[in-house]
Amino acid sequence: MSLLVQKFGGTSMAGIERIRASAARVARAVREGHRVAVVVSAMAGETDRLIGLCREAAPLADSAEHDVVVSAGEQVTAGLMAIVLQAEGIPARSFLGWQVPVETTDAHGRARITAIPTGAVAAALDRGQVAVVPGFQGVTPEGRVTTLGRGGSDTSAVALAAALGAERCDIYTDVEGVFTTDPRIVPRARKLARITYEEMLELASVGAKVLQTRSVELAMKEKVRLQVLSSFSDAPGTLLVDEDEIVEQELIAGVAYDRNEAKLTLVAVPDRPGVVAGIFGPLADAGINVDMIVQTAAADGRTTDVTFTVPRTDLARARAIIEAAAVGHQRLEADAHVVKVSVVGVGMKSHAGVAATMFRALADRGINIQAITTSEIKISVLIAEEYLELAVRVLHAAYGLDAPA
Amino acid sequence: MSLLVQKFGGTSMAGIERIRASAARVARAVREGHRVAVVVSAMAGETDRLIGLCREAAPLADSAEHDVVVSAGEQVTAGLMAIVLQAEGIPARSFLGWQVPVETTDAHGRARITAIPTGAVAAALDRGQVAVVPGFQGVTPEGRVTTLGRGGSDTSAVALAAALGAERCDIYTDVEGVFTTDPRIVPRARKLARITYEEMLELASVGAKVLQTRSVELAMKEKVRLQVLSSFSDAPGTLLVDEDEIVEQELIAGVAYDRNEAKLTLVAVPDRPGVVAGIFGPLADAGINVDMIVQTAAADGRTTDVTFTVPRTDLARARAIIEAAAVGHQRLEADAHVVKVSVVGVGMKSHAGVAATMFRALADRGINIQAITTSEIKISVLIAEEYLELAVRVLHAAYGLDAPA
Repeated sequence: MSLLVQKFGGTSMAGIERIRASAARVARAVREGHRVAVVVSAMAGETDRLIGLCREAAPLADSAEHDVVVSAGEQVTAGLMAIVLQAEGIPARSFLGWQVPVETTDAHGRARITAIPTGAVAAALDRGQVAVVPGFQGVTPEGRVTTLGRGGSDTSAVALAAALGAERCDIYTDVEGVFTTDPRIVPRARKLARITYEEMLELASVGAKVLQTRSVELAMKEKVRLQVLSSFSDAPGTLLVDEDEIVEQELIAGVAYDRNEAKLTLVAVPDRPGVVAGIFGPLADAGINVDMIVQTAAADGRTTDVTFTVPRTDLARARAIIEAAAVGHQRLEADAHVVKVSVVGVGMKSHAGVAATMFRALADRGINIQAITTSEIKISVLIAEEYLELAVRVLHAAYGLDAPA
Repeated sequence: MSLLVQKFGGTSMAGIERIRASAARVARAVREGHRVAVVVSAMAGETDRLIGLCREAAPLADSAEHDVVVSAGEQVTAGLMAIVLQAEGIPARSFLGWQVPVETTDAHGRARITAIPTGAVAAALDRGQVAVVPGFQGVTPEGRVTTLGRGGSDTSAVALAAALGAERCDIYTDVEGVFTTDPRIVPRARKLARITYEEMLELASVGAKVLQTRSVELAMKEKVRLQVLSSFSDAPGTLLVDEDEIVEQELIAGVAYDRNEAKLTLVAVPDRPGVVAGIFGPLADAGINVDMIVQTAAADGRTTDVTFTVPRTDLARARAIIEAAAVGHQRLEADAHVVKVSVVGVGMKSHAGVAATMFRALADRGINIQAITTSEIKISVLIAEEYLELAVRVLHAAYGLDAPA
């Protein structure tokens, strides 16, 4: 009898009617003959409410106690899901983080799962019960409550699926799956039936946040078949798979964008060894993540311009650090009105010309590329923010991703 | 260094500002040199909200899962109290029911505490930390979450005080202590500085619900010095003590009343052995608690009238059961407009005339007594509801309880 893990996000648990609808999905899987473990998020908004209480209690609340407070949201929905399942005639019981136990490090607020001994949960499944596990929460070796950080319930679900050797981990959310791009920008965006873990990770890194990145990394490492699908429809979702499971390989899986970019340019920096380190060292020390870097030597060979991007939220801090570093630059230019647009696809490993298509398509529309970065399966360009929607549409069409009209 | 248990009720935990005010009381005790363990209730209204969710999920929710849900309220306030204390500069940490552990029976929703191994909490106290324990919750030998029933946090506090050998258990609530009677009826009611456990139990049994009855029984059994006082004032409260600690003994400690009474009279029941059992057996089987009983033989000696009281909420059920029992009575009269008024005091053990004073005072105002019950330290009378306030005022004055004008 196959074993499924089903995970329901906050919108799928927001109130008893929603919980009932989610429970009906669990019941269906049980009646189809699956053993099912369920991982639940807190009701939508509840975690924010609890975080707000902690912040009101103290601006810098003790992270161990913070975890005691914020983990209560998933405790409530786990109990309610078990109650609703029982009312549907499905034997069920909840296992809180410390009852499973979901063993984690003691890095409160951002703990990492170290092990999930599955004896108790597996025994319940063997007895024909559905095991309901609150996401997001765990317990340290000393027996203190931890949480995994925002969106940690996805990671809980994947880790439980890995520990139980589940056939699949279904993540029910408020979107129908992973799309070729943002349907709000391109109405003809298509839902992908399959996507590789690597593509999903690259898409997440450029702003398409359907799943928590850690959960995808874990699924890839543990070879958990992960499916993203909607709580609110019966349409099939998107299955995350290994590259060799993709039969009909598209060149590009999707086009993503990230508005959280800001550009800094140091104009006329002395072109001497160590100067660049003099900038990026202090930024790294401050925990500011530098992404794209372009260096342009001046014609005279004595100075160079250095352009790079930082998260927009770190822009002010980055400027202050650079001015303090005093690397002899003539001036510092900042531009927060830039976006990163990326095309992602494992197909580009084996196909040339992907970048050329991108540059030509953008150039045809007069969109200037300010910086470029690439990975094995991704090409990202930095452009002026005003061209965002146009660039996404043009690239989506250029790679043949538009759904048939 | 003395050890105090301080317990804060729902109104004392209703929002961060209230929690801060409660934490300030803890901080004061710590700065005065006490080791302090704190027991907290959920925020006022929160437990009802969680119970409401369970009820919406299923009218008859599994009591084990119900406990998982409703215990979350105290988990939140325990974490918040620890955070606020730390912000005040007081080292503190929370211990959830399973972390203490507060060991209980597995009677979910109404579990009884079986033991509180205090090793972890005592170690924290010895390290100079305040231990914050959520009230109401415990854990079974199998490691499942339990709750102690409504008002169970008082019992948690007393049990923890007993286990720790605390010098005193202070219960902070929204009243200033135990009064000689309801100040809404008698403005000249006085707050009692001391009251015996027995008196407190009798007062609770007739409707003066300042403390949960089980907590008082436990305090009496374990000889925990229990103090009731207000979170909202600095006035001294009421201390519960053994009888021999009451120095200046008042004849009567207080006058209480109970509106939850209904009277049933079976008119002209055949006066044969077993007939009374034929009525009360089925009522007991149905879990209906019969309180006062009066039997009046008719002049002809062949029939008898039987009058008794049941909780008002059980009246309809009681009537149906009696009619079904068919004990040969001529008719059944019911009256829901009755109240029980009681005077309570250990002084009546050694003083005669207490009952006479009561009957005379009521008779002087034309108040008819419909039934009487007594215990060693209590006399209760059943009267028409319309006389409730008058009777309470008259008795309060008759026993010299009115505060000086």
